Amino acid sequence: MNYQYQTKRWLEIAEANKPVLNHKKIFPEKLVIINPSKTAFHGWSLIAESNAHSLFQRKLSTGDAFTLDFGEHLVGYLHFSLNLIGDAMGGPLRLKFIFGEIPAEVAEPFDSYAGTLSRAWLQDEIVTVETLPFSMVLSRRFAFQYLKVEVLAASFDYRFVFSEIYVDAVSSAPSDIDSYSLKKVSPGLKALDIVGLRTLRNGMQTVFEDGPKRDRRLWLADSPLQALTNYYSYKNYDLVKRCIYLFAALICDDGRLPACVYERPSPHKGPEFILDFSILYASTLLDYGIHSYDWESVKELWPVALKQFHFIWDHLDKRNLFKDIGKWWIFIDWHSELDKQGPMQGLILYCFHRAVALAVKIDRQDDVSHFQMASKKMTESARDSLQKSSGELFVSGEKKQISWASQIWMILGDVVSPEEGKIILKKLLNQPNAIKPATPYIYHYAVEAMLKCNLKEQALELIKYYWGGMISHGASTFWEIYDPENPDFSPYDDFLINSYCHSWSCTPSYFIRKYFADPD
Amino acid sequence: MNYQYQTKRWLEIAEANKPVLNHKKIFPEKLVIINPSKTAFHGWSLIAESNAHSLFQRKLSTGDAFTLDFGEHLVGYLHFSLNLIGDAMGGPLRLKFIFGEIPAEVAEPFDSYAGTLSRAWLQDEIVTVETLPFSMVLSRRFAFQYLKVEVLAASFDYRFVFSEIYVDAVSSAPSDIDSYSLKKVSPGLKALDIVGLRTLRNGMQTVFEDGPKRDRRLWLADSPLQALTNYYSYKNYDLVKRCIYLFAALICDDGRLPACVYERPSPHKGPEFILDFSILYASTLLDYGIHSYDWESVKELWPVALKQFHFIWDHLDKRNLFKDIGKWWIFIDWHSELDKQGPMQGLILYCFHRAVALAVKIDRQDDVSHFQMASKKMTESARDSLQKSSGELFVSGEKKQISWASQIWMILGDVVSPEEGKIILKKLLNQPNAIKPATPYIYHYAVEAMLKCNLKEQALELIKYYWGGMISHGASTFWEIYDPENPDFSPYDDFLINSYCHSWSCTPSYFIRKYFADPD
Repeated sequence: MNYQYQTKRWLEIAEANKPVLNHKKIFPEKLVIINPSKTAFHGWSLIAESNAHSLFQRKLSTGDAFTLDFGEHLVGYLHFSLNLIGDAMGGPLRLKFIFGEIPAEVAEPFDSYAGTLSRAWLQDEIVTVETLPFSMVLSRRFAFQYLKVEVLAASFDYRFVFSEIYVDAVSSAPSDIDSYSLKKVSPGLKALDIVGLRTLRNGMQTVFEDGPKRDRRLWLADSPLQALTNYYSYKNYDLVKRCIYLFAALICDDGRLPACVYERPSPHKGPEFILDFSILYASTLLDYGIHSYDWESVKELWPVALKQFHFIWDHLDKRNLFKDIGKWWIFIDWHSELDKQGPMQGLILYCFHRAVALAVKIDRQDDVSHFQMASKKMTESARDSLQKSSGELFVSGEKKQISWASQIWMILGDVVSPEEGKIILKKLLNQPNAIKPATPYIYHYAVEAMLKCNLKEQALELIKYYWGGMISHGASTFWEIYDPENPDFSPYDDFLINSYCHSWSCTPSYFIRKYFADPD
Repeated sequence: MNYQYQTKRWLEIAEANKPVLNHKKIFPEKLVIINPSKTAFHGWSLIAESNAHSLFQRKLSTGDAFTLDFGEHLVGYLHFSLNLIGDAMGGPLRLKFIFGEIPAEVAEPFDSYAGTLSRAWLQDEIVTVETLPFSMVLSRRFAFQYLKVEVLAASFDYRFVFSEIYVDAVSSAPSDIDSYSLKKVSPGLKALDIVGLRTLRNGMQTVFEDGPKRDRRLWLADSPLQALTNYYSYKNYDLVKRCIYLFAALICDDGRLPACVYERPSPHKGPEFILDFSILYASTLLDYGIHSYDWESVKELWPVALKQFHFIWDHLDKRNLFKDIGKWWIFIDWHSELDKQGPMQGLILYCFHRAVALAVKIDRQDDVSHFQMASKKMTESARDSLQKSSGELFVSGEKKQISWASQIWMILGDVVSPEEGKIILKKLLNQPNAIKPATPYIYHYAVEAMLKCNLKEQALELIKYYWGGMISHGASTFWEIYDPENPDFSPYDDFLINSYCHSWSCTPSYFIRKYFADPD
């Protein structure tokens, strides 16, 4: 282990900054009915049936079921109490609780799930009740807006009622997002802002969780987007500090940063290493320093950020073009056909420039002096080899693939000027065959690129079209995956396992606050 | 409420005699494989696979499963611990635990269960594990010998192992039944005795439970058979006292004794009233007094016992024959075709005589002076109307049904002398068309009747054939239901819901100790 890596100390700092969670008791709003619908999102439409309070009048028995809508996406623990209607309980009661972030999760059976991720992420629990009255807190933490309860079995000689049901909602963000929401914006922007704030709140636990339903862990390139939105809203700098220190504390022996880390039972790293994620760490530190003014921490972690670039050099070919040597996972986006060459070329340049900016801030310019030459060569080769001529769309790979990701990262990597970027982006918008983003992660950078090129109107249109599209499908938090043209898309082969409250999707609140709203 | 019924005081006495349970840590014996087999009981045969300890070497993942045999039927709480094999847990783990009293319960799916009792009695639990290592005690108490564990889901990036698994077995009887078992008997009787003792032990909790898997409550005519066996083995008189006081404390306003009572959340009665059960209460008190010498308690509860006969009189027709007026449940046995007239005629007489014997013991003969005339009339009418001539089999009902139950209760009710009873029973054994007993409850009284008629050899043969038959099918505790000619019989339409450790089945230990064994 490099002497510079004071991992023990860093872990102590991370743990010292572990937040205490805020709790709020949330009651269900409505009883709802979910019906199949050919036109509705995922094929299920929601109809309000009655006020949730009427549940307490329902005398339940075998075969009965109901669905509650808690009014918004929540993360927390379900509390409930049951009472006996009858003389005695001739046999026990078997209840199934199914929690859904979206209506489809409580409407479709989990038995036929055939996705590539563990079915155990799907949120259902079976409880056997031997004595009534009965009160319970389900031990598992759930992320959901909808709760379906099925009475799997009871005996004929009694009925029972729910006498209480609520969620103990938890977050390290303030639970009252309304007081944080923007007041002086249009209703459309206000809605986007609230959903973004809620997405951020529900992912803010003892780390920035990737998704509070699925992937309940800290990811290296996802959490910085939460941090960014947090800087413009809840301003919980300690949580960011905890996260950047956790990664540094769990650095691999060879200096690579793990792509994700786990908190329990004690902090440990996941086995994944993602090349593009690792070099973004410098950019994360720069943002943290700018917003928190905690440059001491940034200085302390600088060697870690710098080390990540070490793994880049053998990915450059003779022409200084990025080449996937098959050694590490390269992410960029979940689109299965996306060629990574062009996007990586731009992303590396972006990370060089951010690292240099950071080095200037903390007076470590010498550490990055070699970045400038590399940047110059990579920029030239990008223009020479991946672009026909100025103002043309960048291509990627042997098949000269045209993608949004390539244009976005070339612009953010300063391969072209904002003016040329504007021309490119306008062309891109009229290029239906270009590989589109598959996730909010890359859409985020698309908006960043547009804003950089002074396409403010188009950026807002994109936010409204993309994140607003989720809201129009009923979202109360923004999703991990959303392809407006293929709403059932899942990189895991089953949309039920997609996360519907996801870290990298919360940035509309950041964009609106930074670019589109007057200060309140 | 009758001033004689000091229900509050009686409940206090019942609660004061609530036993503290004994605990014993029991580890599994073997890993086993359960295979379909056309010749095996319920169609499933068991093969030992390896020592249970080899489980700890198995690295498990999605789709894996194993079955443990704990060596004997147990009642208690499952403890287990799991360890991670791998760097990190990319997704949670979903485990299913299926507990079986018999192999079929862990081999057959519960999904197709269509019995008439609550499916919630079937013993399976699903657990979601979010972090490894993990330790847990399943909160539900289980009654089982076999435990199947299925790994419903994990993620591809890890394996896990069981590092510990055991049962915290509970009973108000001593956990070490070996030290109570008979030493000076043949291996066959020793086996019957041990299985009987275990059946009794596993049902002895804070009351005499009917079945520790299903019907976890105290029944009025079942528990006396446990008490009887207890008098000859563990001699826990306080538990019997608790049970007889519980019934008395929960007497109905009109003086009827509930057929069953529940302990939790606080003692309360079930809605059932069973006519034959209620009049047996006097007999239960008599046995308790004889064995415990606690005649004070018996005296105190005598008015309750006496009151039960009050509900008999309107069930006698002009000829002094029993007539089911359809007012109350009459049990006798689970056989669906059994006519109850003959059996009830004998059973009422049996209860009269036992009540009179009890009245003599506590010097309350005046209370039962009218029983003698009634007994005389009922005995005469039984002989006149239900028997062709002396030594012939008794018939029951309009269809003149011949059943074991009629002969048994006529003999126990002293309608015939032991000498005539002997002739009747010998005829019965050669009468294949007679309605046979369906449960150990009525087989118990068959053995009693044989012993009363000095058919000691036949009684032992019957014990060996009937209870020994369960052992030959692999039983380590005796069952609620067993029809040697129709092993799949269930009064609840699914043999999975039958109880395989059941109160009324433990009496071989009583018979052997009282009639067939030299004192140790």
